[in-house]
Amino acid sequence: MCGSDQAIVTKGSKLSSGVVPEATDANLRPNLPVDAIINLDHGDPTMFESYWRKLGNACTVMFTGYQSLSYFANPKNLCWFLEPKLEEEIKKLHDVVGNATVEGYHIVVGTGSSQLIQAALYALSDPLNEPKPVNVVSATPYYSSYSEVTDFVRSGLYKWAGDAHNFDKDGPYIEMVTSPNNPDGVIREPVVNRAQGMLVHDLAYYWPQYTPITGPADHDIMLFTVSKCTGHAGSRIGWALVKDINVARKMVKFIEINTIGVSKEAQQRAAKILEVISDSCSQTVRPPELDNFFYYSQHLLTGRWKKLREIVKCNGLFTLPKFPLQYCNFTGDFTKAHPAFAWMKCKEDVDCEKLFRGHKILTRSGKRFGSDPKYVRISMVSRDEEFDLFVRRLSTIHEIANGN
Amino acid sequence: MCGSDQAIVTKGSKLSSGVVPEATDANLRPNLPVDAIINLDHGDPTMFESYWRKLGNACTVMFTGYQSLSYFANPKNLCWFLEPKLEEEIKKLHDVVGNATVEGYHIVVGTGSSQLIQAALYALSDPLNEPKPVNVVSATPYYSSYSEVTDFVRSGLYKWAGDAHNFDKDGPYIEMVTSPNNPDGVIREPVVNRAQGMLVHDLAYYWPQYTPITGPADHDIMLFTVSKCTGHAGSRIGWALVKDINVARKMVKFIEINTIGVSKEAQQRAAKILEVISDSCSQTVRPPELDNFFYYSQHLLTGRWKKLREIVKCNGLFTLPKFPLQYCNFTGDFTKAHPAFAWMKCKEDVDCEKLFRGHKILTRSGKRFGSDPKYVRISMVSRDEEFDLFVRRLSTIHEIANGN
Repeated sequence: MCGSDQAIVTKGSKLSSGVVPEATDANLRPNLPVDAIINLDHGDPTMFESYWRKLGNACTVMFTGYQSLSYFANPKNLCWFLEPKLEEEIKKLHDVVGNATVEGYHIVVGTGSSQLIQAALYALSDPLNEPKPVNVVSATPYYSSYSEVTDFVRSGLYKWAGDAHNFDKDGPYIEMVTSPNNPDGVIREPVVNRAQGMLVHDLAYYWPQYTPITGPADHDIMLFTVSKCTGHAGSRIGWALVKDINVARKMVKFIEINTIGVSKEAQQRAAKILEVISDSCSQTVRPPELDNFFYYSQHLLTGRWKKLREIVKCNGLFTLPKFPLQYCNFTGDFTKAHPAFAWMKCKEDVDCEKLFRGHKILTRSGKRFGSDPKYVRISMVSRDEEFDLFVRRLSTIHEIANGN
Repeated sequence: MCGSDQAIVTKGSKLSSGVVPEATDANLRPNLPVDAIINLDHGDPTMFESYWRKLGNACTVMFTGYQSLSYFANPKNLCWFLEPKLEEEIKKLHDVVGNATVEGYHIVVGTGSSQLIQAALYALSDPLNEPKPVNVVSATPYYSSYSEVTDFVRSGLYKWAGDAHNFDKDGPYIEMVTSPNNPDGVIREPVVNRAQGMLVHDLAYYWPQYTPITGPADHDIMLFTVSKCTGHAGSRIGWALVKDINVARKMVKFIEINTIGVSKEAQQRAAKILEVISDSCSQTVRPPELDNFFYYSQHLLTGRWKKLREIVKCNGLFTLPKFPLQYCNFTGDFTKAHPAFAWMKCKEDVDCEKLFRGHKILTRSGKRFGSDPKYVRISMVSRDEEFDLFVRRLSTIHEIANGN
């Protein structure tokens, strides 16, 4: 009902504990004033904190002073700085979730997937010895960081060439295929499809809490990140599954020159976190008090999207993307996507980012994604308190004033 | 005496525990076969492991599953991903050691100092909007990675221009000043000294175990790294002390785009390790069983250098750099440098790297440092067992065969 203030989270039958996720002190933050600035510009994935908090010490890792001194984690591995335990847990989790093929792939760990994007661009472009930089494209709306990550040091190896839909140049090119897409949550295929095309699949959001898992992806280069899978953005751990050994080797070379490997502490902690998630999905291993992580987090996101759609429907000023009902191999249910971002469009011809800013809601403008200023990207993975305040404030916007 | 096999480590009066550092299982590795390949190419600083092992759990850090989820460590700080505790411990340690001024400086944390070198090049060159890349130079012998780090993505902002001694171009340039120098341990000053010069001081080895501390450095940009200070190379933590707020801001921007910050786990562990080191230097705080870290590690290095110089003197085939006796403000003694690398020169006109390789000793050729193949750089910071085997094998080299 329009204007009602019902609880955001509704009871979920899939949750093994049968308990509605509790708001904790940390994510409620009752001190947030009612007129506070709400920053939903970044996709800082703090919403899963309640899950990890409930685990107490079950996910704790320890480091003594004498551990992991060396640069090397496994000198015999192609990726010599990859912790063996992390490699094992990455493979296990993909097997459990069924979202990517790992057999026959090389795993390259990175300091977040941003570093892996650069490593992939380097690995694909450097061996070509092209006289001009290789063009890098992605279909609009594309992830706002791609252009900056590609161009910030004005590389002679690769350069940002914008919207893949408009790309018509000859020669080699790299297409970033983000699926589900950031900002709009849409499942994507490459759009250029020309000879000499090289693809990098950014699958950061191809996890069951965000989208139905329709089968294991098996592309040439697939990027994942702990940040979006588990919520541990502070660790800066991402990984690539790479089919071609020479591409993998060259990506390792990039990370070797760029940062001489990846923090061992972060890798070991990430390994533990992925292990706990895999265990939480197992009928045989899971302790009774432990919720399946993906059911739990899907449940949270479903609740938030339901609330947001109700309010958007009520005030009639905006639209949200619609997603098809699809069979998810992981949950065994027909579900819709509940993306990490809401790609919201203002029905009137106004600068939507500016409109929200006037209401002290910080969002990312559609312009940043190569799209229209009528659109904004809004993080759906913030803390409960921020999300609650956002939807409450959104419900008070009844008209769009002239000049926004 | 030539050919004798005395213990490498001699008793050190400065060690508070009065105990000679013990070889541990881990650094002895009695399984290393007598004809094993000895890899002293990298400067993997594993030699301090015995110190950290003696501490047991006194340096242990723990991470629960719900800690450090966010990308942000301190949104109000210029370096928004810098852990406040690490900032505090960096400042404290510089105060304790007296090797750098921190008052009035901005601290930027990086994924090792490699990332900070790139961040500095970016920060200094990007705002100039030069039509051509800014030249980056360093005096030979220079750190072998500078050229690769500068040129690997063929940046249009900066490019490697080699030996600073030969640099005679007009316009802006960046000079890397490494002091003590890698590979040869020499204390350095800038050599170009022209208008429009910008300096980056790489002070990775300006710590008491390697060189006398003659005063607090106060250059525009100073780079340090946990790897060489404490031996925790696996953590990938470095920091920059930056005078100009705009340069600091731009370095932060580089790290934001490159890796969206720096692992929180690694930062928090580094903070603990630096804290323990500062405590170990304090008369009031230090527990009686805890050796002063710098005395302990200086003692180890002194022992190794003594042994190496004896053998080099005995076989008469090589030379080593000589270092002046200088007053060290930190120890209150006159000491000589005991660098992390031995920059060894073959007296005959041979390829020294090839010569050592023939004896299954991997070193880094002088050519890699812009110098002569008669030189090699040899790591002095490996595990005891490797160092022992190295000096034993070196003592068996009595002549240089034709064609090496």
